[in-house]
Amino acid sequence: MRDSKPRGRTPVWKAIAVALRGDMSEGRYSVGDKLPTEAALAERFGVNRHTVRHALAHLVEEGLVRTRRGAGAFVAATPTDYPIGQRVRFHESLLAGGHRPGKRVLLIELRAATRAEAEAVAVEVGAEICAMHGLSYSDGQPIAIYESVFPSGRLPGIDAALAEVSSVTEALARVGVADYTRASTRLTAVRADATQALHLQMQEGDPVLRSTGVNVDAAGVPVEFGRTFFAGDRVTLTLEGR
Amino acid sequence: MRDSKPRGRTPVWKAIAVALRGDMSEGRYSVGDKLPTEAALAERFGVNRHTVRHALAHLVEEGLVRTRRGAGAFVAATPTDYPIGQRVRFHESLLAGGHRPGKRVLLIELRAATRAEAEAVAVEVGAEICAMHGLSYSDGQPIAIYESVFPSGRLPGIDAALAEVSSVTEALARVGVADYTRASTRLTAVRADATQALHLQMQEGDPVLRSTGVNVDAAGVPVEFGRTFFAGDRVTLTLEGR
Repeated sequence: MRDSKPRGRTPVWKAIAVALRGDMSEGRYSVGDKLPTEAALAERFGVNRHTVRHALAHLVEEGLVRTRRGAGAFVAATPTDYPIGQRVRFHESLLAGGHRPGKRVLLIELRAATRAEAEAVAVEVGAEICAMHGLSYSDGQPIAIYESVFPSGRLPGIDAALAEVSSVTEALARVGVADYTRASTRLTAVRADATQALHLQMQEGDPVLRSTGVNVDAAGVPVEFGRTFFAGDRVTLTLEGR
Repeated sequence: MRDSKPRGRTPVWKAIAVALRGDMSEGRYSVGDKLPTEAALAERFGVNRHTVRHALAHLVEEGLVRTRRGAGAFVAATPTDYPIGQRVRFHESLLAGGHRPGKRVLLIELRAATRAEAEAVAVEVGAEICAMHGLSYSDGQPIAIYESVFPSGRLPGIDAALAEVSSVTEALARVGVADYTRASTRLTAVRADATQALHLQMQEGDPVLRSTGVNVDAAGVPVEFGRTFFAGDRVTLTLEGR
């Protein structure tokens, strides 16, 4: 991959970490696999072992690699491929990819809809919406921070339901939305702000993939407007047949 | 949108530029529209007119806004929504979105396939492939830099065809590929390297949306492996019904 080679101001150790992460992402190394020795990696990348150690230490910090004294370095987790689809559910898709999904709700609140939120879920500006902030994990590492808003006027009790169950799908079912699909998705790349960087264990300004989308019920009525910020170095969104 | 407000280290003028760009992107202001006066914008964002002028100057630099002495600031171009789809053609989709598409080929070369390229287009590592580097423009501003590789062994004359015609679709047709579709797409956010930043008129390290994908012919045989880097602040990829 083009960004897997040192260029511009990218330090060599970092480029090597990116290359190894890419190898894991592409399945060349799976969880539990032993990585080549420092000597072998130094040879492959044409650097000294100190630089290789620096790259491995970075991957250890990220939770992707675990080192065992004497035994070498092993893959502890792999970067996450996350399919986009009309019916993709976070939990199921991570499990299907062989990853351990996790979630942490940071805040659930009822508040007034901003203009953008009102347009997205088809309510009046200032109408009450339920906002949920949270973090998504894969194999124990944070991969995304999200904010979802729900039209609480049309979905009374959604805030309580979201507080009780961890799954949005289940919470929506509890307030009468038996099924929903993704109506549209918008994707772009932005810099992580201070809050996102803190939660995603990145540096402020690191690239994050922003996905915004609206979920609609069977009748096409908006039930959720979500904004998700994926850690660029840990998640690849995949679209089959697109 | 969450990243349209000043946070972290984002200077206020820049946050205002992002907010205005967002307004244009969402169609609140279209090409030719007059933007609110500096005084009105200063009021809207709760800043002084100097800060508004700084934001507008930035948008002028980007080619999104044009100012006319006495008359005010006008929308010169709008950020580009670019749909992802199995049959999306760059030229057509930009025209459909009311944008003026442009393209500049930087290099066409025959060379040996890297491991990743060989896997993507189903040839042996080191086999000859045709690589094309280029820039994509919308309304005169660069929005993406791309590298596409073609299995020249299976597509003899593809290099000459690409050199003669500006459209990949037409070039593929000339070497016998009457139709092709996108088999898969992988998306993530990365930092612009020095070369990408230069061509996209960004700062090195600015966020770019990386899209990699394989196009296949009617028989499902790979005909193109493309890597495209979209300027995060100028392009939003859209997926309907996803």
